Amino acid sequence: MSVRRSVGRLLPAPENFIPDAVLEEISAQGLDASRRDFLRKSFAAASATLAAGSALAATDHPAPDGDMAILQPSAHSTRLGHPVAFTPYGSPSKHEANLQRRESPGLTRKRESSISFTPLQGLFGIITPSGLHFERHHAGWHDIDPREHRLMINGLVSTAKVYTMAELMRLPSVSRMHFIECGANSAMDWGGPAVPTVQYTHGMLSCCEFTGVPLSLLLEDCGIDKQKAKWLLAEGSDGASLTRSIPIDRALDDAIVAWGMNGEMLRPENGYPLRLVVPGLQGVCWVKWLRRLEVGDAPFATREESTQYLDLMPDGLQRQYTVIQECKSVITSPSGGQRLLDKGFYNVTGLAWSGRGKIARVDVSVDGGRNWKTARLESPILPKCLTRFNLDWAWDGKPYILQSRAIDEAGHVQPKIAELRAVRGKRSVYHNNAIQSWQVSAAGEVMNVQLS
Amino acid sequence: MSVRRSVGRLLPAPENFIPDAVLEEISAQGLDASRRDFLRKSFAAASATLAAGSALAATDHPAPDGDMAILQPSAHSTRLGHPVAFTPYGSPSKHEANLQRRESPGLTRKRESSISFTPLQGLFGIITPSGLHFERHHAGWHDIDPREHRLMINGLVSTAKVYTMAELMRLPSVSRMHFIECGANSAMDWGGPAVPTVQYTHGMLSCCEFTGVPLSLLLEDCGIDKQKAKWLLAEGSDGASLTRSIPIDRALDDAIVAWGMNGEMLRPENGYPLRLVVPGLQGVCWVKWLRRLEVGDAPFATREESTQYLDLMPDGLQRQYTVIQECKSVITSPSGGQRLLDKGFYNVTGLAWSGRGKIARVDVSVDGGRNWKTARLESPILPKCLTRFNLDWAWDGKPYILQSRAIDEAGHVQPKIAELRAVRGKRSVYHNNAIQSWQVSAAGEVMNVQLS
Repeated sequence: MSVRRSVGRLLPAPENFIPDAVLEEISAQGLDASRRDFLRKSFAAASATLAAGSALAATDHPAPDGDMAILQPSAHSTRLGHPVAFTPYGSPSKHEANLQRRESPGLTRKRESSISFTPLQGLFGIITPSGLHFERHHAGWHDIDPREHRLMINGLVSTAKVYTMAELMRLPSVSRMHFIECGANSAMDWGGPAVPTVQYTHGMLSCCEFTGVPLSLLLEDCGIDKQKAKWLLAEGSDGASLTRSIPIDRALDDAIVAWGMNGEMLRPENGYPLRLVVPGLQGVCWVKWLRRLEVGDAPFATREESTQYLDLMPDGLQRQYTVIQECKSVITSPSGGQRLLDKGFYNVTGLAWSGRGKIARVDVSVDGGRNWKTARLESPILPKCLTRFNLDWAWDGKPYILQSRAIDEAGHVQPKIAELRAVRGKRSVYHNNAIQSWQVSAAGEVMNVQLS
Repeated sequence: MSVRRSVGRLLPAPENFIPDAVLEEISAQGLDASRRDFLRKSFAAASATLAAGSALAATDHPAPDGDMAILQPSAHSTRLGHPVAFTPYGSPSKHEANLQRRESPGLTRKRESSISFTPLQGLFGIITPSGLHFERHHAGWHDIDPREHRLMINGLVSTAKVYTMAELMRLPSVSRMHFIECGANSAMDWGGPAVPTVQYTHGMLSCCEFTGVPLSLLLEDCGIDKQKAKWLLAEGSDGASLTRSIPIDRALDDAIVAWGMNGEMLRPENGYPLRLVVPGLQGVCWVKWLRRLEVGDAPFATREESTQYLDLMPDGLQRQYTVIQECKSVITSPSGGQRLLDKGFYNVTGLAWSGRGKIARVDVSVDGGRNWKTARLESPILPKCLTRFNLDWAWDGKPYILQSRAIDEAGHVQPKIAELRAVRGKRSVYHNNAIQSWQVSAAGEVMNVQLS
């Protein structure tokens, strides 16, 4: 079992381990006055208030007696461990083996055209470990030899060109952190709560540092016809030859032809050796194993944009080319499937993002949206990037409904599911950026629910 | 062989593949006017100037003929690949197997008390992949069961306490990106160039996003005696019981008791499940497998700070407790051991950092420090964090000496090695933040050199 499930964040301290008397001492170095007051009151309100120092009884080591106390050394403290470079490329602890990207069985007919979800409930900060980046393939992934890989640019350019990886990697490069979210993230919940955990409700979401050459530089290099150019076709070299139309203004803005992800080369299942990074746009536009870019004067109406990734509206018509991932957030802990095993303090934490720019504010409600508190945002706060938020909360053992609501710098406010449905009906699939509700029962069980 | 060594960044485009005519068209979307002019002149100056489109001849695919051209599909483009979740926790491409952290053989008598170095020459951006984070152990590493792990705080506090991981992980957490550099990084070069590559000259350096509880909050929780408290002892639970004294003002500033690294739990060799993060301080202070913190009124003079990690001065006296990693930078590519196989454009790239705050500027010289140009800094620029810099350079086949010089927001300028030696002599070991010189020979070979 994973640490976070078995003994981690959501398991209780056996006591309220920050005694009231000590909290009185907490100064400006730690918490500001209002937060100190909140913490003090919330611990006082919790039912199992005990005397100072009682948390020590929770351990199976002797309780320390002032300065004289010494922890019993663990067995490993008395002998040599593994040498350096024992793992020339390291792996997570064996105790973390349960933290995996997971498929939702039966979601698609073939596993080569399916999804594996990032375990958001067990992650911290904003960087997604590359080994846990979500996957969405249309014909499976290959480990392509970069010496054989080529990128061709053609269409409305003065000179069509083919680039080797060596040619691309000599060019001026940029590095930027961005989120990537599949347009189908949270799709299963359009009709009502369908999946139990945040891994399945929101796990088609990752965030990495990408490095590559600005797409605008390559298009200039080929002599793009700026008068006629309106759309760009991006084509992958997978078995699906996945092809997507990108609006040319987005292509010439902050898009990157990227080889680097989180400091190293892209992982094979994320497009090694080359993928398109189009910040703020739905994941399917970030074409993996990128082999061709064609400049055109109209969208290309390929299979994946004319029969898939459409927004079915109540009148039966479909919206096409709705590529921007709108302002959204989710509480990742406590979240569905987890259990609060004791009353007292919890750090409510989650992620917020917007394809329109930076996150300006995140509010959190514990009463289903009647009252909201502004959460703390962790730095850095970057455009089209995940932002981590945290909020203090003391659980008194009663039922609650936890929600988060993001607001971006362009002023977009994350909608309620009812507001989305009023416009787009119940039969939509893609682009669900509704507020997520997690119900905490009196037993501490956390469940995926939707408010009417 | 790794991509970057065999066909990557330092291998040539067979031609100058950005033709002059196209560069004329590069607009504000891509490069600004002065940079455009530089690129145009540098390509014109290079010896092998060829006609537009000639780069296409470099490929083994048919040259495209305007819009009608189609790349020959690769074999993998015609069949299904691996399914999703084929690797529930993913790994790098098999083509990247050469990119490893490496030990410097014979550096210490036992591999359990040695170093493995991060391969900076092959990395991008600022995030170090957790699998390539450098290692410095004093008695090897263990994969500790977090259910058994405890943190004790004692000394000048009103209540000594022992915390479980579950207790710590319920507390308010913060996430921040910081570099970590061993105090002995670049130590081997004090007496002159000793090692060939940037992996060995500067590879005791990594940068990650860390998540944990502010140390100040824990010290307040235990009722730290602010009148008497001057130093903090941090103790690891490894076989060395590694112990270090931390100035209390640094402990109460931005220090974190961290469990998260790059979005997931710490790796075992980096201190799983708990390590001290003291931004800006030398790596040995970031005690791994953290089991005890003791508040005191004086430094503790432990083995690793009274007989090791000292700065031997020319008069034979030793400086103690010089814990801050000063302003420093290094060009990671081109760097020692690499080879420029053709003339023409190169993206000169590297890293800058300071234990005093943010990087304000990085200058790059190609003539051994006579002339300097200001490099582009990639965002985000964060305090006590790596900053990636890039600079355009066209190599004309003559010998050069490449250098970078960092300046931090506090005004500190990275010194020349001669300036450092004038103060600290030649027998020092730790805290070498001198400017690094890479000599490019007419044959394109890059070597570690020092200017007199």
